[in-house]
Amino acid sequence: MQSVEEALEQVLKAAQSRSPVKVPSRDALGLVLAEDVASDVDSPPHDKSIVDGYAILAADLADGPAEFDVLEEVTAGDVPHERVVSGAAVRIMTGAPLPEGADSVVMVEQSELRAGNGSTLGRVLLNPSQVTRGQNIMRRAVAMARGDRVLSTGHVLRAIELGLLAEVGRTEVLAIPRPRLAVLATGNELVRPSEKPAPGEIRNSNSPMLIAAAQTAGAEAIDLGIARDEQRDLEQRIAQGLAADVLVLSGGVSAGVLDLVPAVLSSLGVEPVFHKIRMKPGKPLWFGVKRHDAGRTTLVFGLPGNPASSFVGFEVFVRPAIAKLAGRSFSPSETHAQLTGEFTHRGDRPTYHPSVLAEQGGERSVRPLRSQGSGDLRVWAEANCLACFPAGDYSLAAGEEVSVRKLS
Amino acid sequence: MQSVEEALEQVLKAAQSRSPVKVPSRDALGLVLAEDVASDVDSPPHDKSIVDGYAILAADLADGPAEFDVLEEVTAGDVPHERVVSGAAVRIMTGAPLPEGADSVVMVEQSELRAGNGSTLGRVLLNPSQVTRGQNIMRRAVAMARGDRVLSTGHVLRAIELGLLAEVGRTEVLAIPRPRLAVLATGNELVRPSEKPAPGEIRNSNSPMLIAAAQTAGAEAIDLGIARDEQRDLEQRIAQGLAADVLVLSGGVSAGVLDLVPAVLSSLGVEPVFHKIRMKPGKPLWFGVKRHDAGRTTLVFGLPGNPASSFVGFEVFVRPAIAKLAGRSFSPSETHAQLTGEFTHRGDRPTYHPSVLAEQGGERSVRPLRSQGSGDLRVWAEANCLACFPAGDYSLAAGEEVSVRKLS
Repeated sequence: MQSVEEALEQVLKAAQSRSPVKVPSRDALGLVLAEDVASDVDSPPHDKSIVDGYAILAADLADGPAEFDVLEEVTAGDVPHERVVSGAAVRIMTGAPLPEGADSVVMVEQSELRAGNGSTLGRVLLNPSQVTRGQNIMRRAVAMARGDRVLSTGHVLRAIELGLLAEVGRTEVLAIPRPRLAVLATGNELVRPSEKPAPGEIRNSNSPMLIAAAQTAGAEAIDLGIARDEQRDLEQRIAQGLAADVLVLSGGVSAGVLDLVPAVLSSLGVEPVFHKIRMKPGKPLWFGVKRHDAGRTTLVFGLPGNPASSFVGFEVFVRPAIAKLAGRSFSPSETHAQLTGEFTHRGDRPTYHPSVLAEQGGERSVRPLRSQGSGDLRVWAEANCLACFPAGDYSLAAGEEVSVRKLS
Repeated sequence: MQSVEEALEQVLKAAQSRSPVKVPSRDALGLVLAEDVASDVDSPPHDKSIVDGYAILAADLADGPAEFDVLEEVTAGDVPHERVVSGAAVRIMTGAPLPEGADSVVMVEQSELRAGNGSTLGRVLLNPSQVTRGQNIMRRAVAMARGDRVLSTGHVLRAIELGLLAEVGRTEVLAIPRPRLAVLATGNELVRPSEKPAPGEIRNSNSPMLIAAAQTAGAEAIDLGIARDEQRDLEQRIAQGLAADVLVLSGGVSAGVLDLVPAVLSSLGVEPVFHKIRMKPGKPLWFGVKRHDAGRTTLVFGLPGNPASSFVGFEVFVRPAIAKLAGRSFSPSETHAQLTGEFTHRGDRPTYHPSVLAEQGGERSVRPLRSQGSGDLRVWAEANCLACFPAGDYSLAAGEEVSVRKLS
């Protein structure tokens, strides 16, 4: 049996970034950019005012407050027509281009309007406490110049990046598309959530859980329903799932006689990589790879049927694989926290225990929840992290540090 | 001018949780539950085996390894027909119901098959190193009993909760729906990202940025396009925006003569709450509330037109409002980190500075980025946090702690 670290290394080795495609920028939130993006404009496109006020020559105010003729008014989107000379001012709005001649802008809050004389827009008294040449002006191209690289390959596209793409006119970009992940539940005991289970049956809770987990991880999820423990049904649905980048099977990978899944996977050309991992819960995890023509691959995870094992298997192996397929580097949200009480661990496998992480004043504490076995999703609903305990029989005292992994 | 804290208090006071609606569970990921959910089943529905193995009487192995007649095989989804008596065993698969009479399950790994005698499935030698009564059995209803409350009002629905809802047959739940947020850019200088700006014009980068930010915050975003600084166009588009829960205007709220927005808002019955906040960037932020009939309200934010101010205004005020409308408690991802170098702050307003937060071995460091003013989205693309500096003229040395707010 492999360790979690060995198994994860094999998963990440098999998971290669998807091929880039052209994506409309509006649909690219969260994707990884697959090209360098250059600006086709100067920003700002002209020297501009960053306040509402009056464009003047700073020298005119060297000796204190003074009155000016207002030549015209320029708003954002306008082009100024007049040239500012000594004794003259142009009323200017935030973002508007600076008129020729002007070297400073005085804020409207430091002005008083006077009556006009007919030939101008009026006169204005400007009374700032001090004036520095260049004040309240943002120079052309200071944020970026035409041709400048504004974003590089590998950058994750967040809200700011989508704004930046719009600014440089990119309504489409080359990006790594969202991985497609298909979920197939297996088992004769399963019925749909809308059905009432007969004796011996239970509802399929793993598919809705795994689909939501995949969406949270940034994948596009496809529900393949429930396959019966029957060769033809399994074959058909698994073949469908192999069209995706990741196929997650839930159930059907322990040692039972009806566990046909590994045989069917093999008959469909999925090469087994490992089966069983030294971890708790989640030991009977199966992983294989289907190599299609043209270099495309499908990663196949066979997760144990019970919900908690399935969830932990997803968090520890499938989530990192999705990140890698999406072109992102994977780093689990790991941290350390102090136990709120004594904790006894038994067993020869490292354990992921549903727990509550609390942070207060820079101090992190973690409280492992009492679970009634790996079928107990109710306890997991209270958890916001996994506490990770190494293998062995030992007791930890309150206050001892353990490794925790935040859940999203 | 108000402080950020005072202004945020007013925003959160005006932002009330949306009314709950019935939502298909498959669309409820990330929503807040608005009802208590009880189980309609026992989980597990019967005493069940948690391994593949043999159901027996523990007393039969009290004196060490022994052989058993195998009466039948029970798989998950099956119902057992035979009763286990001394000397007999039932082969049982993970998840299958425990046969009557049996009190323990021995794992298949601790068994050796013998030849059958025709009337049974064969004989099996069981050789576990020890047997405890009840081992490898999960008792009926131990995870949850019919009628138990499994989730309470206010719980955020994550992947685990969607699994739990499926387990108890809830394909629909009462939940707080996603807030709807409309974005309207204003300004004669704006052209669409697909257009080439003429002199004096710039592309509208704020709408794509704010739409993506709203989606990241869990809202459903509606793009109302660009309104010209012209009363009728503004009125029509703002009226459309008032159908949403939040209307975010970008631009049009500073003191310029063409800034018609506050007047139009007032004519449409939007009551102003505040204008201008003691913060940098983002000072000229406008906030008002439209009270519709039947108690419905629309929160209206007028964000400054320049991208960085707009972004900071969104993070500090709109994101918390969206959380509250969605029924979630709001807590910004605030933490503390040590400056990587000296930092000089000037000005009478607290500053949110685009910065890079790094965490290593429990130590957090923050490096403020050099920005070329609030139009400079390129610098913001490098940032993963806002460093928050209090008002005043002062210098901080490398290693001093500052408050930081992570960006998502």
